[in-house]
Amino acid sequence: MISKSQMKFISSLSQKKFRDESRCFVAEGTKLVADLVTAFDCEHLFVTPEWKQFHVLPKAVQPLEITTEELKKMSNLKSPQGILAVFRRPDYSIDNILFENKLCLALDGVQDPGNLGTIIRIADWFGVEDVFCSEYSADAFGPKTVQATMGAISRVRVHYVNLSDFLNNLPAGFPVYGTFMDGENIYSQQFNTSGIIVMGNEGNGISDAIAQKVNRRLLIPNYPTGVETSESLNVAVATALVCAEFRRRM
Amino acid sequence: MISKSQMKFISSLSQKKFRDESRCFVAEGTKLVADLVTAFDCEHLFVTPEWKQFHVLPKAVQPLEITTEELKKMSNLKSPQGILAVFRRPDYSIDNILFENKLCLALDGVQDPGNLGTIIRIADWFGVEDVFCSEYSADAFGPKTVQATMGAISRVRVHYVNLSDFLNNLPAGFPVYGTFMDGENIYSQQFNTSGIIVMGNEGNGISDAIAQKVNRRLLIPNYPTGVETSESLNVAVATALVCAEFRRRM
Repeated sequence: MISKSQMKFISSLSQKKFRDESRCFVAEGTKLVADLVTAFDCEHLFVTPEWKQFHVLPKAVQPLEITTEELKKMSNLKSPQGILAVFRRPDYSIDNILFENKLCLALDGVQDPGNLGTIIRIADWFGVEDVFCSEYSADAFGPKTVQATMGAISRVRVHYVNLSDFLNNLPAGFPVYGTFMDGENIYSQQFNTSGIIVMGNEGNGISDAIAQKVNRRLLIPNYPTGVETSESLNVAVATALVCAEFRRRM
Repeated sequence: MISKSQMKFISSLSQKKFRDESRCFVAEGTKLVADLVTAFDCEHLFVTPEWKQFHVLPKAVQPLEITTEELKKMSNLKSPQGILAVFRRPDYSIDNILFENKLCLALDGVQDPGNLGTIIRIADWFGVEDVFCSEYSADAFGPKTVQATMGAISRVRVHYVNLSDFLNNLPAGFPVYGTFMDGENIYSQQFNTSGIIVMGNEGNGISDAIAQKVNRRLLIPNYPTGVETSESLNVAVATALVCAEFRRRM
């Protein structure tokens, strides 16, 4: 049986400060838990009797059976899916990353958990292994983000850094890309297929301090150029378009 | 002063059946309302005194002042933004659309309002004027979708059709594109820059009935090919990648 204090602990993980303290995070749903269990240490696994009737357990993790009511109290989903797991958050070091020949993403204050999750999923799709988030970005291990990654969080390493210091410490001349309204058309430019692609905040784009570190300013053109259209693309959509263009050229 | 029945009516517009009955829909927020007021008939406009203090009214629409409490009761947003408008839904005819030299989107059961809104915003960005939704798609005039379009709903025409009949009635040989796991790499194929691009449901992709009408099967490649990555892209992201590739070639 699950204890009250256990339930309280798991509910608390919807808040960042308790995730930071415990270094734990929650994931829900059959496919997501199955993906994550291969990558992270599973601290707790809860399933309902209804779930057990129709599913096989992922790997050799020992589950605790709980009632649908108990699950509802801990779940972050509108419709809980019968399985909830608590994982230990990974500790990645950035010291040994070899940036040469590597394409990475840097996020300068992406705030929406859904956008961040979608960006991690996009990174995974395009083989981007490392995503560097400024301290003002959403938490990759928050419940909404984890769910939105659809499992990609188990394959993409998300690092939180002082983005300005991080960019300063890159090898001299290392390409740092960003998209700007006055950038150069991404489809008609020559560029390396390695480097860091910086994506900005949903409302404000790339901050001035970080914009100064960008040495290749790109533009995603709209169509037809010059006619009034939406003023901007969603940041996850823009990330996908830039990654696709880098990968198309490889 | 706003009447109780008016408030009830406006709250009811969060439900599709009342939107269909009244042919009205709700939009909130300063920029969104300003965009929509140029395109649709505005039936009601409500603002709070706090909003009025800091904003100029869009065009010559006569607003009714309401309290923050009254706005909260009608608003679909967690943090209401001080301005809410009710617009009349447009009636578009598809009879006079000239498909030649035109790029359109068709959505085969996109269910998530946020995805639909983002797709409409993408259509706007890429100059796609018409989006044809199957009857099983989310409602473009639902509050979540309208907000997610960020105003693009005022520039993109969204039509609801029997998608199978619609595709059957296209000129013979008209290109109908769709993305499939076994399609041809979109970046290495030749294709017209006009046609219909069909995008499928979030979970199930393009339905079998509609897949039969697709005469050009495309693939968005992941990277590096053959390595395990996310199994699919979000449908809005996939839409953007396909539209970008069509427009890049023009």
